[in-house]
Amino acid sequence: MLWSKIFIPTLKEAPAEAEVKSHKLLVRAGLVRLLTSGVYSYLPLGLMVLERIENIIRQEMNSTGAQELLLPCLQPIELWKKTGRDTQLGQTLIRFTDRKGRQMCLGPTHEEVITELVKDHVQSYRQLPLILYQIQTKFRDEIRPRFGLVRACEFIMKDAYSFDRDKTGLEKNYQAMYEAYKRIFSRCGLEIVITEADPGVMGGDISHEFMVLAENGEDIVGRCQGCGFIVSNPAAENKNCPKCRKGNLSFQQAIEIGHVFQLGTKYSKAQGATFLDEAGKKHPIVMGCYGIGVSRMISAIIEKNNDDEGIIWPKNISPFEVLILPVQIQNKQVQEASLEYYRLLSNQGFNCLLDDRDESAGIKFKDSELIGIPLRLTIGEENLKQEKVEIKIRRTGEVLKVDAKSVAEKIKSIFEQIS
Amino acid sequence: MLWSKIFIPTLKEAPAEAEVKSHKLLVRAGLVRLLTSGVYSYLPLGLMVLERIENIIRQEMNSTGAQELLLPCLQPIELWKKTGRDTQLGQTLIRFTDRKGRQMCLGPTHEEVITELVKDHVQSYRQLPLILYQIQTKFRDEIRPRFGLVRACEFIMKDAYSFDRDKTGLEKNYQAMYEAYKRIFSRCGLEIVITEADPGVMGGDISHEFMVLAENGEDIVGRCQGCGFIVSNPAAENKNCPKCRKGNLSFQQAIEIGHVFQLGTKYSKAQGATFLDEAGKKHPIVMGCYGIGVSRMISAIIEKNNDDEGIIWPKNISPFEVLILPVQIQNKQVQEASLEYYRLLSNQGFNCLLDDRDESAGIKFKDSELIGIPLRLTIGEENLKQEKVEIKIRRTGEVLKVDAKSVAEKIKSIFEQIS
Repeated sequence: MLWSKIFIPTLKEAPAEAEVKSHKLLVRAGLVRLLTSGVYSYLPLGLMVLERIENIIRQEMNSTGAQELLLPCLQPIELWKKTGRDTQLGQTLIRFTDRKGRQMCLGPTHEEVITELVKDHVQSYRQLPLILYQIQTKFRDEIRPRFGLVRACEFIMKDAYSFDRDKTGLEKNYQAMYEAYKRIFSRCGLEIVITEADPGVMGGDISHEFMVLAENGEDIVGRCQGCGFIVSNPAAENKNCPKCRKGNLSFQQAIEIGHVFQLGTKYSKAQGATFLDEAGKKHPIVMGCYGIGVSRMISAIIEKNNDDEGIIWPKNISPFEVLILPVQIQNKQVQEASLEYYRLLSNQGFNCLLDDRDESAGIKFKDSELIGIPLRLTIGEENLKQEKVEIKIRRTGEVLKVDAKSVAEKIKSIFEQIS
Repeated sequence: MLWSKIFIPTLKEAPAEAEVKSHKLLVRAGLVRLLTSGVYSYLPLGLMVLERIENIIRQEMNSTGAQELLLPCLQPIELWKKTGRDTQLGQTLIRFTDRKGRQMCLGPTHEEVITELVKDHVQSYRQLPLILYQIQTKFRDEIRPRFGLVRACEFIMKDAYSFDRDKTGLEKNYQAMYEAYKRIFSRCGLEIVITEADPGVMGGDISHEFMVLAENGEDIVGRCQGCGFIVSNPAAENKNCPKCRKGNLSFQQAIEIGHVFQLGTKYSKAQGATFLDEAGKKHPIVMGCYGIGVSRMISAIIEKNNDDEGIIWPKNISPFEVLILPVQIQNKQVQEASLEYYRLLSNQGFNCLLDDRDESAGIKFKDSELIGIPLRLTIGEENLKQEKVEIKIRRTGEVLKVDAKSVAEKIKSIFEQIS
């Protein structure tokens, strides 16, 4: 694509409300814009990153046999009354009464809705196991929205739900999701720490969180110096490890990007979702739920992949793979060479952005560092005379002067090696 | 994919609230489920159709140079006060007050939000023209939600917005969108009638609607018997054509699936979205907006593509292209042949569904007609003995007995010919 044809409003300065680096860079690199506290628009570049992440999640979810569907944002409050979560969520749940007096809320999660759906259509053990998931917009009336996409009132989640006949089935699906999550985060370039967690308002016994260690994270990861046990957000009174009861905990701040729960029968019992076994005996369905903060992942990725100049995208989720930067856009030879490389690399399957703007080289270089495309191909007058061009690796800062003729193979081999 | 691995809860009977054929079939074929009046969940098959339509829309939008972004559902009411549309929309606009007393609404459309965004980032004529679009969930508190996805409280729209320096630019973009719409609907297998329309609450002068003629449509298309002029929803007092003022109008019911508007400067003036021309003079940006009812299109397509047995999907948006139906699933030879064809056709690029369920042939045949995949490959014991299989074309009902060896080429040539 041509830079002149994409709406990428980069900024020199971050907005005053941006406290952390990822928030500043999200705005400065033209990925998102604030509409009102906790509510963001995704601009074209931000949406591209979102789509890359969503595609990786879809591939890994589908590979476990999970099926995608799409549930509504609007939910009747009466459903939440069945599980008592209308009270438990309190003011966090956004509510309104429609013109006919129907009490509604905006879904922050979908256990009740999916349980209702499955209850109506699953009657027999033969229809189990079943894993359903969606990637969808969720809503929370946050007391204190902050850190850009980390804590927002409107955000995008992947939420999956598993339905099994017994605990053994649940444990198997839980493990499959656990492994899928590791693959998803690794493909997105995120190193994670997996912690034992408190299921809280979701319910159930066993729960794990997928954390990205980050100075500005709102969560705490506690690691036992004795037995190595890792726990999220240990209660303040716990000076010792909750597992071995002996070792001291060391603490690190983190951003939670995934959370999985063995729910058990909390929802199926409250809502009457049952199945008949081989003997015709009725049992409540055994459930699990599995969330990923999709939009929050963008913040976590930027928080861990940046330098003073801007973002450094991991290659799998970068909006583009190669940025082609003609230094003197008015120079015909530079222009032609740039277009030629654009076509050549695009034909080889690279997703290229050509900075065709009539701006100074200084602005272009600054913007290129800011938006953080993994590889930059710099086409300049002087180098062209020697039949050379420059390849810059964004992450390492390394610059390679290469033969104009070997660009495609060089880009290919470098791209394979970088993360 | 294997039928046994997809959640397709087909029903023999339609729910009581379903008045029209498309609504009945949407539910019976396991595409959607009602959560509460006007609010639907898309099940896996329904989501597949939605994605096919969205991809066609994206391709055609991108080909005009329009750029995709994603705006929030949550909008501050104060934005709507700037244009006076908070009052104009009245109770249709879903509103709530958050815990900090902020008055919010759920977006039924995004003129105000996008104008605010463009106002902050477009200052010069050099940044124009610009077309931005999104495919997103919208909300309306409908007095009378009905006809399934035709009139819902939560629905999916494609909304595009063009920004130009003058009327000439607007007219050019309007024409580009108009032509893109014709291509989109044609690729989705919909015959449309384009009418002149009243811009209504959107504002502006010129507006066209894209209508699908349908007995159960809520809109009226008036066609002048004299001059041929076509108008949507002519006022009751208009017994004569509003254009030639002489001819009589004939009326037909229709479903509106697209609406384009030359907005002019209504929003840019109200919100102060201006640009500087070459001479440094300030002007309001000239806008257009362009909507497609994406989820509603599914209803319109089914309304026009069905028979007594079920849906007949146009090939471009069908969830699958070929349904493979083993008549005797317990017969090893039938099983093996079915899997073999599944692999063969999948390798040739066909999106196949294999009905591997251990159900009676009767149920499988009924379900296959109901879900409406364009081509069915029927694998039966008797035919296999003669090295034959059957291909059934869903739309025409035509059945071809073909040599087992020539299946791939037959399917290919038939698929090319059908619509």
